[in-house]
Amino acid sequence: MDLSRDDLFSWPISHWMEGDGPESDVVISSRVRLARNVTGIPFPHLMDDGQAERIISMVSQALAGGPADEPGPTADLHLVRLSDLGSLQRAVLVEKHLISPLHAAGARGAAVIRGDQAVSIMINEEDHLRIQVLFPALQLLEALAVCTAVDDALERHIDYAWDQRLGYLTSCPTNTGTGMRASVMLHLPGLVITNQARRLAGLINKLSCVVRGMYGEGTEAAGNVFQVSNQITMGQTEEEILSGLQSLTARLIVEERSARRSLLEEMKPQLEDRVWRAWGIMTTARVLSSREAMQLISDLKLGVALGLIDRVGASLVNSIMFMIRPAYLQILAGQELSPDERDIRRAELVRQHLSAGTA
Amino acid sequence: MDLSRDDLFSWPISHWMEGDGPESDVVISSRVRLARNVTGIPFPHLMDDGQAERIISMVSQALAGGPADEPGPTADLHLVRLSDLGSLQRAVLVEKHLISPLHAAGARGAAVIRGDQAVSIMINEEDHLRIQVLFPALQLLEALAVCTAVDDALERHIDYAWDQRLGYLTSCPTNTGTGMRASVMLHLPGLVITNQARRLAGLINKLSCVVRGMYGEGTEAAGNVFQVSNQITMGQTEEEILSGLQSLTARLIVEERSARRSLLEEMKPQLEDRVWRAWGIMTTARVLSSREAMQLISDLKLGVALGLIDRVGASLVNSIMFMIRPAYLQILAGQELSPDERDIRRAELVRQHLSAGTA
Repeated sequence: MDLSRDDLFSWPISHWMEGDGPESDVVISSRVRLARNVTGIPFPHLMDDGQAERIISMVSQALAGGPADEPGPTADLHLVRLSDLGSLQRAVLVEKHLISPLHAAGARGAAVIRGDQAVSIMINEEDHLRIQVLFPALQLLEALAVCTAVDDALERHIDYAWDQRLGYLTSCPTNTGTGMRASVMLHLPGLVITNQARRLAGLINKLSCVVRGMYGEGTEAAGNVFQVSNQITMGQTEEEILSGLQSLTARLIVEERSARRSLLEEMKPQLEDRVWRAWGIMTTARVLSSREAMQLISDLKLGVALGLIDRVGASLVNSIMFMIRPAYLQILAGQELSPDERDIRRAELVRQHLSAGTA
Repeated sequence: MDLSRDDLFSWPISHWMEGDGPESDVVISSRVRLARNVTGIPFPHLMDDGQAERIISMVSQALAGGPADEPGPTADLHLVRLSDLGSLQRAVLVEKHLISPLHAAGARGAAVIRGDQAVSIMINEEDHLRIQVLFPALQLLEALAVCTAVDDALERHIDYAWDQRLGYLTSCPTNTGTGMRASVMLHLPGLVITNQARRLAGLINKLSCVVRGMYGEGTEAAGNVFQVSNQITMGQTEEEILSGLQSLTARLIVEERSARRSLLEEMKPQLEDRVWRAWGIMTTARVLSSREAMQLISDLKLGVALGLIDRVGASLVNSIMFMIRPAYLQILAGQELSPDERDIRRAELVRQHLSAGTA
């Protein structure tokens, strides 16, 4: 893959959207990221352009240092400077969760992205390095393992800022220690329909975790998709933090499944109606707003998980969730689009993919 | 056809639902009815059971009087006593516009119905006889011709109450004279979407006509279907009355088509979206209220008329409009159904018919 070409932008499916893996009826994806900084260079908001450039070439050399042809943690990793990308291309990387909005907005950033889009490294975002692994379904430990392997490979060439007492030093103190933030993206339509989402948000906060919409802080939970992540990064090992998030996730899965079961028992016709209408509208609508699309995708996804509809697979539904985002739609159209034009293109794209995915 | 058997009730399509004929993009059907009474017998609300019975046998003999094997105005006409029908069966006849709710509620009525359900005679409703012809599309003169032929055939055997000065005498003075009421059933979604329905209702009243919902006085215009009929029955010939209704209808057709054209020009994607969603929901929904079904049928019917969708023909859409009525659904189910059960059966029936009608 050559990141300067269009592949990354025109191909919507990232590995993590495939939807395969444990508990994929509720858990869309698992993410682990490690914040790392290079010793002796100021944090990004304080460094100059030359220092920013040094970080990029340091990572670039570290990646080139590995045995190129052998499989290993740094195989198939490709570096791209954000300044080489147009604003729509950067926005697509944000939509795919490969980089953050903050990163996309900066002029001195670069991103390292693995061919399957499961691994990415943001360079010169809030920290010098943010190594991130995004896996389908519930695979937090697996994601941590890959993340750590990439981290170790880089550490052989880069001297990280680390303190005996504090651990890894980070630009924002809330990340200091392990530098780790782990999160799961959950589809919780059962809890929303049965009005339990608010109650569980309270529980999540009590357990030192935080719940957000699909695109992180300040975004709404469109399509009943929630991100739950750890808040504590210090005083616990990575494994302990993950284990806390794991058991919270397990509890949410149990509650979500139980809500779905009771919906099935108490209002099956209404549930089937909801699921099938979603299919009906998605395969016929000519104008589709992003908000409505997310709600329909949520209904369809729920139907697939419950076996109420078999015309489409879970992974296609997951990837449609990302295809309908504004930047991707515009990249696909090859031009900027007004919101009205996007609604028409969105409807077109959803129809195409669902009729192609029809059994 | 034997009206004591189930044919009439299980077969949903009446001739007039076929949707073929002039201006069928706007005009669903044309109806002409003649009110007649037998001289020397009190009007129905004053007569006794014996007199009611006499009217029935008078009609029965008049019908038997014609040459049975030859085609003629009274061929294929069949008499059924309402007391021989269950309440659901009577309700189906009302839903098909073959008899009135008032007629269905009475104990002494009978109905004469032609095999194709285009001709019906209500016996002992408000008047002794109400001869009615219901044709698809705009065919008022054709309907009058058939109605008159049946009327003439009966008059050869029955002595009608008639006054030199007043004309045909009727139970309610608003029918006296010609005894004729003519009406057209119009589908006016363009005028409703562009908010012109109210303005035109004013115009209709000024022209001595009256506009009502699909099931006559006091019913709402579900699915943007309106009935327009003459108010005057006296001082004009039948042809003059029809001609007034014809020109009003012509004007409404022009206005409706112009509204549709401007919708097509100004908001084609939204219109296509509306039409295709209707198709999408109707082919997938598992629960469908009567009100929502009528709105969806209206959208689909508009799409068919404008050539925006070709998966279904106009006559199937017309007949679905009547299949979704409560009594027909219950007759089909072979049992009484709660409103919730009806919504499920309605969705089922619509899905079946639309997938069968798919090209």
